[in-house]
Amino acid sequence: MTGVAIDADGLWSRLMQMAALGATEKGGVNRQAFTALDHKANRLLADWALAAGFSVSADPIGNLFIRREGLEPEAAPVMFGSHLDSQPTGGRFDGAAGVLSAFEVLLAFNAAGQQTRRPLICVAWRNEEGSRFQPSCMGSRVFAGELALDAALATTDREGVRVAEALGKGLEGIPCAPNAGFALAAYLELHIEQGPELEQRGLMIGAVSGIQGRRRYEITLTGSEAHAGTTPHGLRRDALRSAAQMITGFYDEILPIDARIRFTVGALEVFPNSTNTVPGSVRFTIDLRHPEQEMLARIDGLIRDITKANASPCEASLKLISAAEPVAFPDKIVDMVGQNAEALGLGHMPIASGAGHDAAAIAALAPTGMVFIPCRDGLSHNEAEWAEPEALAAGTRVLAACVTELAGAPGA
Amino acid sequence: MTGVAIDADGLWSRLMQMAALGATEKGGVNRQAFTALDHKANRLLADWALAAGFSVSADPIGNLFIRREGLEPEAAPVMFGSHLDSQPTGGRFDGAAGVLSAFEVLLAFNAAGQQTRRPLICVAWRNEEGSRFQPSCMGSRVFAGELALDAALATTDREGVRVAEALGKGLEGIPCAPNAGFALAAYLELHIEQGPELEQRGLMIGAVSGIQGRRRYEITLTGSEAHAGTTPHGLRRDALRSAAQMITGFYDEILPIDARIRFTVGALEVFPNSTNTVPGSVRFTIDLRHPEQEMLARIDGLIRDITKANASPCEASLKLISAAEPVAFPDKIVDMVGQNAEALGLGHMPIASGAGHDAAAIAALAPTGMVFIPCRDGLSHNEAEWAEPEALAAGTRVLAACVTELAGAPGA
Repeated sequence: MTGVAIDADGLWSRLMQMAALGATEKGGVNRQAFTALDHKANRLLADWALAAGFSVSADPIGNLFIRREGLEPEAAPVMFGSHLDSQPTGGRFDGAAGVLSAFEVLLAFNAAGQQTRRPLICVAWRNEEGSRFQPSCMGSRVFAGELALDAALATTDREGVRVAEALGKGLEGIPCAPNAGFALAAYLELHIEQGPELEQRGLMIGAVSGIQGRRRYEITLTGSEAHAGTTPHGLRRDALRSAAQMITGFYDEILPIDARIRFTVGALEVFPNSTNTVPGSVRFTIDLRHPEQEMLARIDGLIRDITKANASPCEASLKLISAAEPVAFPDKIVDMVGQNAEALGLGHMPIASGAGHDAAAIAALAPTGMVFIPCRDGLSHNEAEWAEPEALAAGTRVLAACVTELAGAPGA
Repeated sequence: MTGVAIDADGLWSRLMQMAALGATEKGGVNRQAFTALDHKANRLLADWALAAGFSVSADPIGNLFIRREGLEPEAAPVMFGSHLDSQPTGGRFDGAAGVLSAFEVLLAFNAAGQQTRRPLICVAWRNEEGSRFQPSCMGSRVFAGELALDAALATTDREGVRVAEALGKGLEGIPCAPNAGFALAAYLELHIEQGPELEQRGLMIGAVSGIQGRRRYEITLTGSEAHAGTTPHGLRRDALRSAAQMITGFYDEILPIDARIRFTVGALEVFPNSTNTVPGSVRFTIDLRHPEQEMLARIDGLIRDITKANASPCEASLKLISAAEPVAFPDKIVDMVGQNAEALGLGHMPIASGAGHDAAAIAALAPTGMVFIPCRDGLSHNEAEWAEPEALAAGTRVLAACVTELAGAPGA
């Protein structure tokens, strides 16, 4: 049973070709959203798809769609994919594994000559990582109508470049829909786990039950610049000293509350950042995640308290940048992933996603699910990120089986 | 007595013209060493000097010399001046006040038609601040032979630009000596106090007794990049979390030891500095100052202990970037500054310099002293830095009187 045959070597080869775009010395990838390298990655995928005879199109935020026609072209399609952009020091698998496994599924249906009732669409969402332009999952959020297209296009990076400029003519020659978003029958996404559980338990497949909630904050501490060699400490308003104390306070007070809390100060900038000047201001980010809305609200209050308590003698301002509610995928899809893994003889477990994914945005639009595969040491957002070819092939087989089920056989 | 008359208005006007080069919105100056603006500042001074009939020359590190001939041209000259470069968010007075008061002294001798036995040289040292290229006091250290010219020229900024490139043709057309450094009879430098003492005591003049010692360190913390949403906290090696704890440890343990300690973490950079990635490494600087060598050595040991104690689970490496011993100016010059202030009816006190100055390097070469004037709220390395025109004029009168004494009257 479970249909089409996967070409594991072809899939791995395309993934490694993709990894060459933005390859770093340490074996990772730096292919941030809407850079020339990101455009090249999307172009490479589009060229492969055109060569295989699929129709390729884009939307105004640069999401790329590869369509395999169904027997009922007007039926809502089954979509599956992920993203091609990476963190500044990212790995080869985060996102790219999901897009290329999805593309391999399309190829496998072609190779098997198997028709489906619904059209199939392999998607590459734009700017999932959000490291250059925020928010993350920009392409999927615009597609889902959660983020206005105009607002997304007007977003700027640290150098003041707008998404609209950076998007440029990256997909020149590919037909672009006038608007983003259309109806879907279902959405599936394969992804590396980005955590250690599957590997530790020796399992190949995670049937993802949902995605934990997330809040992002930006805190700005404002003190006063002063000469480092002369200014008595009693007269200083040192923004970095206050920031250091505050950050230590956050970790010490928040982490003991619940082991499932993920709290990270990932980015911090000092002004004027000069050896012999007392820092006049510091800006840093907080990334907070938890599967339960109530806990997120409780920690939110604590963040505000700790910020107030540690700002003196500086002033602190706290801004909530984004908030994503926890997402639960429908049981029907979660079960389908587990059952297909079982039928293929693959060890599996239900698992909650720690990371955010494009699937979280699309879940509001259509029945959605995810297939996780193990990654070495749970490492991700790291140049050493690694998944085994067998895991990738196994996940792709489960994906193909679920797509077969969701798209419907001829006459079904 | 005390000779030549100062043109306070002319001096102030030139200082404000200089402040226009690199003027910031908040009223400060951003004129970092060897930038186009820094070249413009030196060029402006050279043009004023040439227009006034002085001879102007440079040396290979870009120090600018304006010479007023003495009755004995072969005698070692009396030199006085400061620097024209600023911090990234610096003020109008730090450095520029010393150069322009020195230039005003030359003009005042001209206006008075007063000859001196020794030649007089107004100097603008290059790269005192060290915010773009380190070490600080680069020009004066090369002049004094403390720093090799080749090493200084090969120094790079954060973008990898070498001093030799940045120096470029900034002083084109001005004769340049083949080597740096020559014999001096004495060196004087006027500067704003950069601390609160003179203002708090209502005094116009500080007779600077010496400059406290200083050590600069760079600490690099190396952890491991990881996904902020998934990686359990027990598996993280978060370089910024360790850095925050370490910085708090430094301040908490070091400051209580002695009120004269100046300890500053002024610059800090996070890699990869992405909201949703656990920081893999952090690099930051320490600026430590104290008037006593023994205390500097003691705190040095403490810095090493605290670094070790707080690095885990990351690895820390500590590098001593530079060490400047405390400097004591000769009593003869310190007394001369006080006596001339007294003779001019100006309130004065002996004072130790908290900041480093070009005078510290030149003190190894010739009898050296400094004249401090008060600045508002002790603020410096700050765009709000301010000194009153009367204070500037008063300091310049003391400077002129000391120069008169050191250069010798005709026939003296």
